[in-house]
Formats: sequence, C-alpha cells, structure tokens
Amino acid sequence: MPRLSSVTHGIYCRTLSNHTPCDTHFRFNRCRGEHLSLQRDISRAVYALADDARRFREDLARNPEPSREEYRTAAKIHAKLAATGLQPVMARSGRGVIAEVGPRNRPVVVLRSDIDALRMQDERNVPYRSRVDGVHHGCGHDVMTAGLVHAAGILADIDKHGPGLPNRVRMVFQPAEEVAEGAQQMIREDGVLDNAVAAIGAHSWPRIRAGKYGVLDGRIQTSHHGVELILRGPGGHSSVPTPTTDLIRVGSKFSTALLEGMEEFARGMGPEAQPAFAYGKAGGGESRNVLPTKFTFNGTLRYGDVEEFRKAPERLRSLAADFAAHAGFSDYELNIDSAVPPVINTCADKVAEALTAGRGPKVVVREFDMPKGGDDMAFFGTGVDDIPGAPWIHYTQVGVVPKGRPLGEHPYLHTETFDADPSAAGHAAYHYAVMGATRFDYPRDRGKSREMAL
Amino acid sequence: MPRLSSVTHGIYCRTLSNHTPCDTHFRFNRCRGEHLSLQRDISRAVYALADDARRFREDLARNPEPSREEYRTAAKIHAKLAATGLQPVMARSGRGVIAEVGPRNRPVVVLRSDIDALRMQDERNVPYRSRVDGVHHGCGHDVMTAGLVHAAGILADIDKHGPGLPNRVRMVFQPAEEVAEGAQQMIREDGVLDNAVAAIGAHSWPRIRAGKYGVLDGRIQTSHHGVELILRGPGGHSSVPTPTTDLIRVGSKFSTALLEGMEEFARGMGPEAQPAFAYGKAGGGESRNVLPTKFTFNGTLRYGDVEEFRKAPERLRSLAADFAAHAGFSDYELNIDSAVPPVINTCADKVAEALTAGRGPKVVVREFDMPKGGDDMAFFGTGVDDIPGAPWIHYTQVGVVPKGRPLGEHPYLHTETFDADPSAAGHAAYHYAVMGATRFDYPRDRGKSREMAL
Repeated sequence: MPRLSSVTHGIYCRTLSNHTPCDTHFRFNRCRGEHLSLQRDISRAVYALADDARRFREDLARNPEPSREEYRTAAKIHAKLAATGLQPVMARSGRGVIAEVGPRNRPVVVLRSDIDALRMQDERNVPYRSRVDGVHHGCGHDVMTAGLVHAAGILADIDKHGPGLPNRVRMVFQPAEEVAEGAQQMIREDGVLDNAVAAIGAHSWPRIRAGKYGVLDGRIQTSHHGVELILRGPGGHSSVPTPTTDLIRVGSKFSTALLEGMEEFARGMGPEAQPAFAYGKAGGGESRNVLPTKFTFNGTLRYGDVEEFRKAPERLRSLAADFAAHAGFSDYELNIDSAVPPVINTCADKVAEALTAGRGPKVVVREFDMPKGGDDMAFFGTGVDDIPGAPWIHYTQVGVVPKGRPLGEHPYLHTETFDADPSAAGHAAYHYAVMGATRFDYPRDRGKSREMAL
Repeated sequence: MPRLSSVTHGIYCRTLSNHTPCDTHFRFNRCRGEHLSLQRDISRAVYALADDARRFREDLARNPEPSREEYRTAAKIHAKLAATGLQPVMARSGRGVIAEVGPRNRPVVVLRSDIDALRMQDERNVPYRSRVDGVHHGCGHDVMTAGLVHAAGILADIDKHGPGLPNRVRMVFQPAEEVAEGAQQMIREDGVLDNAVAAIGAHSWPRIRAGKYGVLDGRIQTSHHGVELILRGPGGHSSVPTPTTDLIRVGSKFSTALLEGMEEFARGMGPEAQPAFAYGKAGGGESRNVLPTKFTFNGTLRYGDVEEFRKAPERLRSLAADFAAHAGFSDYELNIDSAVPPVINTCADKVAEALTAGRGPKVVVREFDMPKGGDDMAFFGTGVDDIPGAPWIHYTQVGVVPKGRPLGEHPYLHTETFDADPSAAGHAAYHYAVMGATRFDYPRDRGKSREMAL
C-alpha cells in the first residue's frame, strides 16, 4: 500500500493537514491538481483510512458477539458513525444500526453489512484473536462491517464537501444473519427497504485474493432451510437400553438415514444443484450412565437449483417418516424452517464498471470458486410479506486471501482459523463507497425481483 | 405405620418423654415391659425415627448435588451426625463423611451409603421435587443416605444406653459413585477399609416393594467400563461437508458400528452375560451451519459375565479400528476406563437371618428382577492398590415401590420420575442399624475376596 503522503500529495490539500489515524473523514474538497474520476478519489480516500478501518475490524474481531447478542457491536458502529457526523439510528432490536446520507428526494440505495459472529472457537494465532471464549468472526462479518463504517465517512464527505451523491444512501448494519433472522426483522421493523431501488451487499470470500472483487449476475448464494430433528424418549439407566429408549442409538441411525436419503435424492442433479445437507450441532444427555430423554440435531439443507430445492423438504419429511415406521420409533419432530431464498444478483455489469473505474480492470473477477452457502441478504431482493424487494441487488464477494497464499489453501468460512487479510476492511470500504457514490440508472419497478422468491 | 405412642408405649419409657420430631436418638434403656430381640428393638426404634428420616431424605431430594459437588450434602450429614452425639470426620475431599461407633478393640464393620445425585431433570410431581435445575436424585442415593444417618443414631444409642455393639461400626458416606471415583478415593485417602472385616452397602431398588429387602449371594451388580469416543476434524461451513469433515455424519455411523458390533459380540452369550453397551451423552457443535471440530460420545460397557467382560474392551477397540479403516477416518480417540469390578455378595444368609429377626421372614426376598447396573461399592470387596478388601461384603437391594403399584411399572433408576416410597428411608435405616448391631462371626482372612477383582 502506498504511503499516505505520496497518495494524497497534490490532490487533496486539506487531507494532509486534517487526517489523523482515527479520522474516518477524508475531505473531498480539491484545492489543486489533476482531475480524477470519483471512484479514483474514493480509492485514494480509502488508502488514507485503511489503517483506521483495519483497527476497527480488529476491535470487532477481538470482541465478537454471536447472533442475537450484537449489542456492543451495534453500539460501536453507532458511536463511530456519530463521530463521523452522521446521525445513525439504532434498529428497534438494539442490535443493528441504520444511517442515511445524500439527497432526501432521490431513490434509496441500500448498502448492507451483516455484523454477527459465530459460536465457535477462534484458533488464529494473531494479535486480534477473539477474547471471547467460543465466539469467533469465522464468517468475516467484522471485515465488511469495518468496511461499511468507513465507507460512511467517505460518502458523508462526498455529500458535504465533494461532488454530492446521486442517490439517498442508506447504510444498514444487520445482526443475526447466521440464524437467518436479521434481514427480515430489519425489513419489517426498521423499514430498511422503504423506497429502495438497489441493495448492495458484500461478503468476505476466502477463494478470491485480497484487493479483488467477485462480481456476477445470477445466483451468488444458495437457498437453504434450517433443519431441526428432535428425538424424545423416557430415558433410563444405561444398563437397560432398548431400541426405543436408547436415543443416541436411534438418533445415530435416524440422522444417517436422512443424510443418505438426501444424497440419493441429489444424485443425478447437475453440479449447479449443489446439494448439501449437513448437521452442525447435535447433542443430548448429561451423564454417561443415564439415557437421555431428548436428543437434537441441527443442520442446514441447501440446494443451488431452486426447482430441486422446492422438493427437498417434502423428501426429507418422507425419509423421516419411513425411518420412523421402519424403526418403530415415533416420538420425533422434524422442523424445517421456511426457506431463505437464493441471493440472485441483477446488476453485475454496472457494479464491475464502477469498481474498475477507480482501481483498474484487474480488481474485478467474473469467474471464481462459487460459494455454496446462503445469506438472508436474499430478503433485500425478494422483500418480506407485502414489502417489495429492491429491483437491483448485488452481493459482491470481497477477496480476503493474502498475497502469496494459494487460493485453495486459505482457511474456509466457518473454520476456527478463518481470517481475512488486514487490507480487506479497506477494500470493503472502497466497494461500499463506490456503490453508494456512483450514478446508476436504477429501474423504477420495485416489485420486479419478487418473482425470484421461493 | 403405627403411631409413635402406640409403638413405644410400655417398651422404652425414656423415649416417650425425650422424642421430638428432629431427634435421631431412640433410647435403648428399657424400664419395663417384655424382652424383645435386638432387631425388633431396632425395628421399633426406626418407626419412631421414620418421620425424621423421611424429612432428611426429602431435604436431600430438594437439594441434590451431582457427583464431585457433594459439599452441602456432606455438610448436612456431618451436622446431623454431630447432633446425634457422634464425632463425624469429613473425608479429605470435603465431599464425604465418616463416623465410627462401638468398641475400638473390635474388627470394623463398614456401613456404606453413596450420596451423589445425577445430572438430569427431576420431573416428579412431589413436594420434595429437586429445586436444582438439571440435577435429580434419580438413583435414590438420598434415601440410603437418610437411612444410614438415622441408623447412626440408633447404633449410638445401642452402644451407649443399650446392650452394646459387637463390632466397631464405621459409617461411610461416599460421594461420586455415579462417576466411579468416590469409593477408590475414600479407600485410598480416608482409610475406610482399615481393619474392615465386612462392608455392607444398600441401594434403592425399583423392582422390590418398599419394606422388603433383596438379599442374595454372588453377583448383585455387573462390572462396567466408562467409554468415551472422541472424533476430531477441521470443521468448516455446513455448505461444504465432506466424508471426513462432517463429524456428525461420521460420528453417527461410528457410534452405530460400535453398538452393532458389540451386540454381535454379545449374541450367543447366556442371559447371565447381561451385555449392555449404550451411550448416555453425546454432543458437539455450536451452530447449525458450522461443522463441529469435535464430537464426543460417552457411554458404559457392561457385562455380567466376568470372562466375557474381560474380552469386551479389546473387541470394542478392534471394532473402532475396523470402522476407521473402512471409513478412511482416523482422527478419533477411544478411551475405555479401567473397569469397575462386579459387586459380589458373600454373606447373604447371615444378612437375611438378621433382617428377618426384627421384621419376620416376609421382608427378605431372595429372587427378584436383578439390577444390571454397576456400583463402585465393588472396591470395598476387592480393595484398591495394596489395600485389601473386606472379606464379607453384602450389597442389599432396598425396596422402594409403593404399596399397590405393580413392581414392573415403577419408574426405573435414572429416569426423570424415579422416586422411592416415603417409607423407604426408614427401611434403609433398619437395614443399616441391624447390620451394624448384629453379631456375626466374621472371617479373619482379609485378603480372601480380592480374587474376585478383575
């Protein structure tokens, strides 16, 4: 990264005198020098704020909060935005933040970051390793959050001291993505889709180099259901297990039957179907010599192909019924959450054009190892209940792999050693700021994207 | 149960004036009336103390403490014994109690009760339901503890005011039976087997009517191992499970392979072999969409037939190795605890004779639905390290099933609704007091029973 003084010298004279390491502003008043594109101005502004963005991200990484508990995180975001001169508003949940900037009479462009961490160990050997036992930003939401917080300062400067913003920009810091609750809640309770013509999200992606952006149209995240299988029994002494009271025995067979049945179901689908059914959590019992009275499996059911996905819950239910009948075990519940839709991008060319304008064509990659996960960002495109989604939606994959490391060797999302290159928060800030500052011809038909919903 | 006044009138005149509901003494000074056997005296003394024993038991039931945490329980026992005029000593662990009474120059008869509860819910609808969430006296140790505490008062009275005790009686209140630690610890640390010629234990048994005692020679509890299976993996996102990273999938198959393999091993053994391998606890993972990095199963491996039992751990290990090789999954640990030996009774006729002397022949049952569990009471017979066991050992099954309920319908040990008839604490007190007060011709050879050890 170039040194601050060499980047800014001769372009933004006020910056040199005003910038301090904890300053999220980067003045857009030009006093002299050549004219550059807005995106190049933003890129240079980001370089100046990169250290601060990195530090903000590292604070979140050290103090991660799991889904439904993002109080400190929201407070930190709120404080930082307020210090930037914005007037942030707490989400009704107290765990999210909204801030707006730009002309009030223009359509709204939503910039969205999720802010929650995961209940898992952080096993990284880094100074910003989590201090909270069993909680880790293993999905990199800390990086995108720091990016959007710092983009806010840049956008505020463009609005106040620079050429102005083409649209009203609404920055949405969303909690509880990992449990697929936060997006729907903020859309319902906080009106984050009101007048929205576009919604732009971003995610840390461990299969793209830091400094590059994965941009494409169509499905960028799969649809998925949360699945919960609960077995119940009378319990008892471990010396007298029976086929229906030994819940760990019957549960092991039950879970295997569902996994193998869904694999059978997936066989013959094309690679686009990307089937994945797996449990992330299972447990029951307190003592080795007492049969448990309850045993629970929690997992996710995912299919990239929407048509196949529609059939999957029914198949899962019938597999469970078959197993239960065969095993003579009836005391179970199979709960399948209503689906989170796929995230389907609709304006990749525009996004690519804007991102390359500031940093050159090499920063955008249009083909990359695709994620198979899901994200409730999808609801920003589909809408919720009677609230229409934004007609334009783009979910950008922000590269986080450090220079020199083969892409395939970077720890994957949701691993104990997942990390993002320290520069990634700045790259995320560039992405968000460019998306907020660039003039697009957004469509007016706000109901258009709802047909993509399940 | 007869009213106190009608029982005691004309037999023990001091009792009538001295007895209060919280008094554990029952004076053995006779002032007039017919002569009765010592055991009948004890039986009548127990009736007088039955309400107090019931209340003491109900206090333990309301305030259960799981294995390794029996501090309050030990303190309550200590206080009650001290109030009875005994000089109880805390175990070195602070979680057990020892008290002695009777002539110091005589061999020692150990009366042992275990005092720990289980980590499980108490779902009984009774006034003495556990107030501690997730902890329950589901094995009835509260009942035997109350019995032994109240036997102590009777034995102290016989020693001081009555005909005297034939042996030194050492009452041992042992913690951590459910985790098979307490007996060995008290034998090593507290010398509870020093000079012991007999060790008498008792247990609540849900297949015998309250007021009756199950008495037999030979194996009364099976031998068992604690088994722990730990799987480890790199974790990851639930959208990209693989055969070796999806620990709940591989764990379900692994546990099933071990269960089915051990059933195969057990087939062809006689009913005496009583094979039982089951898991009481399993778990791993924190989030439905994050593959766990560790998954653990905890269970017990039991065989009534000692010869078969000796072969079981090796078989289990080879089943695990076979599964791992077949599945291409090598990152596991199979930990099999050193065995708890079977409890093998050696003096049933003497015990039966003494118990019937006070309450008639019907109180002893010699054939009953046998327990298949284990108890570290076994170490009182086998000894530990170089410390020899007691040559005489008897572990009595104390009936707890209320009048009118079919024996097979009473909730089994380690269930959330396991309970003991309110009279059972008194019946346990009778058993312990008779065992402590009766003159037996104990063998002098203190090493004899060690051959029964594994």
